[in-house]
Amino acid sequence: MTDFFAGLAPVRFDPDAADDLSFRHYDADEMVMGKRMEDHLRFSAAWWHSFAWPGGDPFGGRTFERPWFPDAMGGDTMEAAKLKADVAFEMFGLLGQPFFCFHDADIRPEGDGFAENTRRLEEMTDYIGGKMQAGGPKLLWSTANLFGHRRYMSGAATNPDPDVFAFAAATVKTCIDATHRLGGQNYVLWGGREGYETLLNTDLAREREQAGRFLTMAVDYARKIGFDGTILIEPKPQEPTKHQYDYDVATVYGFLKDFGLEGEVKVNIEQGHAILAGHSFEHELALAGALGIFGSIDMNRNDMQSGWDTDQFPENVPEVARAYYEVLRAGGFITGGTNFDAKLRRQSLDPVDLIAAHVGAMDVCARGFKAAAKLLEDGVLETARVERYAGWDGSDLLGSDLETIAQRVERDGLNPAPRSGRQERLENVWNRYV
Amino acid sequence: MTDFFAGLAPVRFDPDAADDLSFRHYDADEMVMGKRMEDHLRFSAAWWHSFAWPGGDPFGGRTFERPWFPDAMGGDTMEAAKLKADVAFEMFGLLGQPFFCFHDADIRPEGDGFAENTRRLEEMTDYIGGKMQAGGPKLLWSTANLFGHRRYMSGAATNPDPDVFAFAAATVKTCIDATHRLGGQNYVLWGGREGYETLLNTDLAREREQAGRFLTMAVDYARKIGFDGTILIEPKPQEPTKHQYDYDVATVYGFLKDFGLEGEVKVNIEQGHAILAGHSFEHELALAGALGIFGSIDMNRNDMQSGWDTDQFPENVPEVARAYYEVLRAGGFITGGTNFDAKLRRQSLDPVDLIAAHVGAMDVCARGFKAAAKLLEDGVLETARVERYAGWDGSDLLGSDLETIAQRVERDGLNPAPRSGRQERLENVWNRYV
Amino acid sequence: MTDFFAGLAPVRFDPDAADDLSFRHYDADEMVMGKRMEDHLRFSAAWWHSFAWPGGDPFGGRTFERPWFPDAMGGDTMEAAKLKADVAFEMFGLLGQPFFCFHDADIRPEGDGFAENTRRLEEMTDYIGGKMQAGGPKLLWSTANLFGHRRYMSGAATNPDPDVFAFAAATVKTCIDATHRLGGQNYVLWGGREGYETLLNTDLAREREQAGRFLTMAVDYARKIGFDGTILIEPKPQEPTKHQYDYDVATVYGFLKDFGLEGEVKVNIEQGHAILAGHSFEHELALAGALGIFGSIDMNRNDMQSGWDTDQFPENVPEVARAYYEVLRAGGFITGGTNFDAKLRRQSLDPVDLIAAHVGAMDVCARGFKAAAKLLEDGVLETARVERYAGWDGSDLLGSDLETIAQRVERDGLNPAPRSGRQERLENVWNRYV
Amino acid sequence: MTDFFAGLAPVRFDPDAADDLSFRHYDADEMVMGKRMEDHLRFSAAWWHSFAWPGGDPFGGRTFERPWFPDAMGGDTMEAAKLKADVAFEMFGLLGQPFFCFHDADIRPEGDGFAENTRRLEEMTDYIGGKMQAGGPKLLWSTANLFGHRRYMSGAATNPDPDVFAFAAATVKTCIDATHRLGGQNYVLWGGREGYETLLNTDLAREREQAGRFLTMAVDYARKIGFDGTILIEPKPQEPTKHQYDYDVATVYGFLKDFGLEGEVKVNIEQGHAILAGHSFEHELALAGALGIFGSIDMNRNDMQSGWDTDQFPENVPEVARAYYEVLRAGGFITGGTNFDAKLRRQSLDPVDLIAAHVGAMDVCARGFKAAAKLLEDGVLETARVERYAGWDGSDLLGSDLETIAQRVERDGLNPAPRSGRQERLENVWNRYV
Repeated sequence: MTDFFAGLAPVRFDPDAADDLSFRHYDADEMVMGKRMEDHLRFSAAWWHSFAWPGGDPFGGRTFERPWFPDAMGGDTMEAAKLKADVAFEMFGLLGQPFFCFHDADIRPEGDGFAENTRRLEEMTDYIGGKMQAGGPKLLWSTANLFGHRRYMSGAATNPDPDVFAFAAATVKTCIDATHRLGGQNYVLWGGREGYETLLNTDLAREREQAGRFLTMAVDYARKIGFDGTILIEPKPQEPTKHQYDYDVATVYGFLKDFGLEGEVKVNIEQGHAILAGHSFEHELALAGALGIFGSIDMNRNDMQSGWDTDQFPENVPEVARAYYEVLRAGGFITGGTNFDAKLRRQSLDPVDLIAAHVGAMDVCARGFKAAAKLLEDGVLETARVERYAGWDGSDLLGSDLETIAQRVERDGLNPAPRSGRQERLENVWNRYV
Repeated sequence: MTDFFAGLAPVRFDPDAADDLSFRHYDADEMVMGKRMEDHLRFSAAWWHSFAWPGGDPFGGRTFERPWFPDAMGGDTMEAAKLKADVAFEMFGLLGQPFFCFHDADIRPEGDGFAENTRRLEEMTDYIGGKMQAGGPKLLWSTANLFGHRRYMSGAATNPDPDVFAFAAATVKTCIDATHRLGGQNYVLWGGREGYETLLNTDLAREREQAGRFLTMAVDYARKIGFDGTILIEPKPQEPTKHQYDYDVATVYGFLKDFGLEGEVKVNIEQGHAILAGHSFEHELALAGALGIFGSIDMNRNDMQSGWDTDQFPENVPEVARAYYEVLRAGGFITGGTNFDAKLRRQSLDPVDLIAAHVGAMDVCARGFKAAAKLLEDGVLETARVERYAGWDGSDLLGSDLETIAQRVERDGLNPAPRSGRQERLENVWNRYV
Repeated sequence: MTDFFAGLAPVRFDPDAADDLSFRHYDADEMVMGKRMEDHLRFSAAWWHSFAWPGGDPFGGRTFERPWFPDAMGGDTMEAAKLKADVAFEMFGLLGQPFFCFHDADIRPEGDGFAENTRRLEEMTDYIGGKMQAGGPKLLWSTANLFGHRRYMSGAATNPDPDVFAFAAATVKTCIDATHRLGGQNYVLWGGREGYETLLNTDLAREREQAGRFLTMAVDYARKIGFDGTILIEPKPQEPTKHQYDYDVATVYGFLKDFGLEGEVKVNIEQGHAILAGHSFEHELALAGALGIFGSIDMNRNDMQSGWDTDQFPENVPEVARAYYEVLRAGGFITGGTNFDAKLRRQSLDPVDLIAAHVGAMDVCARGFKAAAKLLEDGVLETARVERYAGWDGSDLLGSDLETIAQRVERDGLNPAPRSGRQERLENVWNRYV
Repeated sequence: MTDFFAGLAPVRFDPDAADDLSFRHYDADEMVMGKRMEDHLRFSAAWWHSFAWPGGDPFGGRTFERPWFPDAMGGDTMEAAKLKADVAFEMFGLLGQPFFCFHDADIRPEGDGFAENTRRLEEMTDYIGGKMQAGGPKLLWSTANLFGHRRYMSGAATNPDPDVFAFAAATVKTCIDATHRLGGQNYVLWGGREGYETLLNTDLAREREQAGRFLTMAVDYARKIGFDGTILIEPKPQEPTKHQYDYDVATVYGFLKDFGLEGEVKVNIEQGHAILAGHSFEHELALAGALGIFGSIDMNRNDMQSGWDTDQFPENVPEVARAYYEVLRAGGFITGGTNFDAKLRRQSLDPVDLIAAHVGAMDVCARGFKAAAKLLEDGVLETARVERYAGWDGSDLLGSDLETIAQRVERDGLNPAPRSGRQERLENVWNRYV
């Protein structure tokens, strides 16, 4: 045991707790719609925000002081990486989180090239694997960090230099290997640098083709080695490059269709990314559900008025309820889960802040989820929805053609009267549950 | 001749003109890249903004006083519609615009149902056809207004009521007929009400299916009657409904792929719509070019800080040049053209404002276009672009697989060094031309 | 009694109601912090959205059919205006709303000039005054519509034409008279057209001076006739003109200071306007409180992703709670209140939608208010706030000077260590109450 | 001479140059409106972006490799700081920039506390002063970096801990001293951390009071030591904290009025900051001119669609012309100037990129400035502006009162007709010059 969380006890469920370090709503074993809440929500913590991010922003440097940070450890060493992993598992344990996620760069120090990176990744995979065998959380997904290092500044798969494509491809191989070794349930690709800064120097068609091939290779390799988890793309617009190729769910869908991958790859949808694309989180979830590519979620909260990814912990229950309602309508999580891609505000310096933030977020999710589940079970909204489209039941209109339809409209003097959409009344229904 | 533009003479090209009613840059006959400028730019005026829009906004009513407006004519009559058409053709003539565009609702008064609408549309089609036979402008495209009437408040193709779908489908038939009769070079669909206000009452998957069938029917009918123009979808996000299904070019592409229409339908891209989707105009053009679905443009200018479609006349030459550079890279216009989907500011009351606005816009486009053409001909940017990706020439990397690549990266100790993207230097090149 | 709301009974408080036409949280007589909830919240309905707005948007016309609309009544007549008033009072009665608000143009038909407008306003003031004498709701505030008519297209107070200034000033006089006659508790000025479309034709300094004089005249006149209500400015950015002079609370404050009116005029803050200015609603409320100019609120909800004033009914309880927490910290309402500046979605056609929307909104406000009041009473946040700044207690630092301070910092080797801001923990506290 | 810019010659004016390392428009000695262009534009380079910024962004680390960066020099040493200064002066010399700007933290390494920081600042001030004595550029302004270090994470002047206020105040003293010693023409305060992340832990009124006192102390000290340059506040919204107190020009004006500093302090306006506040750059300039607080500008370009400060080099001539037109209308620069608060894109790795970026930016500014000056001299817009408000000449309306005005409006049957605002025609005028 490290002493990072010294003095903090495992978080317990206590509906009447008056402190901010107990669950008041999240009872892992509570049965909802016939399943334990833990098995519905499948909470996961993110290694990067919780353990790697130093608290910097574009106008200021590190605010956090963690014993595993390079200056405290005499460098970015394997020893630091292991201490970080130890603390991570202590946090998962305190919070009872059943899953975790990481990038390769979160768990191993950057080496001097591909070979060293690979060795370090393997060593850390073994180390983490060892900790997992003791029972405890499972790997929801992992991913390769193909955006932080300067070699990727002009893209990874979409780089104008094929050597960078190769370095990135080789790195993805090692990350899929690690994921497979650890029994990861999904493998995620986020195209952090797959985009462009200026069209003046960009061959968009070529870069798109590169990205398509890259993804295909990743899918092929994963299947070849017997990885049967889900491959997920995480859409994101606006950041870090001026234009990101995986802008939103609809864009990713067109891309998958183009490369014949819509049956192989699903999406990992983040609240903040949805918002930056001009959509609501629930829209992206509903669309993915409609297109059959819903996979998993990165839960967080984005300031609606900041034009970048603020990655806050969720704190607005009705918003979260909207999301889970669509998750449930899309069938719920299968291999996916609720990954907290959220970070402390940079002024929240203390270890207890990290615990409290996750406690609050898990409770907010639990409240939102239970409200959504109850509403779905009661069926009030769904009945109204079905009723609204009832005119289509039995209609053969979609099988017709313009001429036939025009004749019918003219002959029958069809002049349909609009009916109320009842939005406010449905919002009232919503607020009875949430 | 009406007296609406009394006192205004046809606009002439005079590079030294000091007034604001002459072209200083647009000489229709100037040869650029081996073709007359008129044949490159294919300018078109929009009936709706120039002749139908009354100058209202959400906080105030009509500001314009036009002799064909209902209260000046004793109602929304065919007589008013014909006067409006007379004035329209006078404007096209004064400006020397080779094309025009309209919605059915722009040229005919709303009748009491489908049958009357159709008769009126036919009568106005004849009337306009007669004016076209005298020589003069051609029809770039027309479209059905499936968003203004209250029957469409919950969608046209995507309405929960199949009767509204039928009414809309029948209307599209009559509009394709009219377009075909007038020799229109394209037919446009803009899904003004194809979207949703709230997910609480929406069946997104069903509505998307309806939209796909609707478009397929339109394509089938157009082909059946021998219309060989281009069918265009005009993407737009955010407005008027909270979420619009045809959000942007990438979204439309995925939709077309889903319904097997990517070879049949292209896109009509509007500057303002691109911006509301979080993209630059040139991005949408470049993407459409890369995907092979570039068709036509709606040229205007959107205030970058107003969250709605401001439809201003273009006035920033470098911005326009960026757009035409991508239009040229996508092969230029074939059936498409430059339609001014732009309206006067509501304080610009006078007939001369209408002429001056188009003069300014045509000149801005001509300046931007000529700069773009010169830069493309000189090849400075294109040479730099090719050079940037030169490492890929002859590379067989895209045909490889992750394992092979990883072995090679490890064996060769591949560790690529980044090279400057040279954005500012390319912007300097740009500014030598623009 | 009209039959507009036929079949609808007065809305009752019933915490267990399963329908959407009962209050489940708003009990007017419930005591909160020693006062009836009705007296805290001071709900008010808005004439314009509820009775004058036809359901149009920039892409489509009227959707609502109301018996007092001009085409149903053979014109915009006094008879229609009185029917509208009758229905309005029926709605206030059904909902038990203690206040209402109007623009002159909401309650009287537009006449052919100032004299007729004035006569009609007086007649309607008498008519409404008569209805008020029967008991029932009071006038929270009224205001002059100085933005709808085309004469105001270039501004009212800030118009380049002094005759328009005069017309507007005369109109404000009649509206202050009407407010005074009806015992209005506040008089509001919203500068709907006080701004500019383009700097190219604008004399900003001169227009600002005009606006300052205009406001001063209004204050002077109100005081002269003995009106002892509060004069309120309603800040708004972005709409309808490109730049609005009363952008936000901070801007209005500087303007008031400049004209020496900061002791005479307060602000009426709208959620949607706050958001369009890039602020949260609670920020604007807290700032107004800090500056001593908090007056009243226009409660609604703005879509955070639509760049215009969406004026939805509030439906997110935690958001509303944040607002009321700041209202309470600013001292609560004195002459101000909670005016629902909210409109039905244009698809919500039915009279019952209007009732349901207000029921939902009042309940959302009541829930949010009660949570805020409880939290403030318990003092958890306030204690933490005081503790955070405790170092300043007794400090004389603000009375010092740079040299003295620098000497002290050097001498003492002052090197302060940052302390956690505890944002997530405070959010957890928040969520215990909301 | 260092070898950083090896091979690059001083940039020359050559209107026919075909390369991107010559001025084609900026001739320092060209007379415009009776003054040398250099004396109008007063170009300044920014130490921070050009020499201190490592090319990182929130998703990736350093991309630039500079010989003075800590890892190349064995630490953040005075030796590195001097090499950086040497290279800076070489750049100023190559570009012929007459001014430069810096934060204390740009020119000296961070020490272990106030005393060491001060000694280092003094040593570097001497070093830079020595380089200035050789002739060459002058100090436009300097400023204290009160936002980067973790001690300032919760604010500098507005910190809840008075010791942080003291540390910041002491630091400002040393920076004013340095500015005075180097003959700086202005001293700037940018409140990078003067704002809040969450209202839940913030005492807004108290923090505002602290900020007012802090600014007053700075002004008092500067005057006491005989500094006769201008004290400038740089407004900025949105970043880095959720709400920044110095949001925009109007907000700063209200703040200055409140503390009686509107005659002592002016504003330094940045294009990117204006845009993030929802305004155009020219709006902020025009407003500052109208309020009498215009001081200086930070010239750059912000991506209109990225919600953060992108600090690009300006590249759109018409936009820049709009800004200079308002600068000239506000009287031009006195102590202020055109500081390029702009940074290379992080992919622009090479020293030549730094030179080319400034060359392009200076040329864009020169083009825009000359167009604006010519238009102002010709007076076309100004004549139209005067004419538009001509009705006010000789009017005594602003000295009247509501009653008198209302009587006159009624008596005269005043019913003013709107006149065209002519925006498009004025834009055509604009485009004849730009």
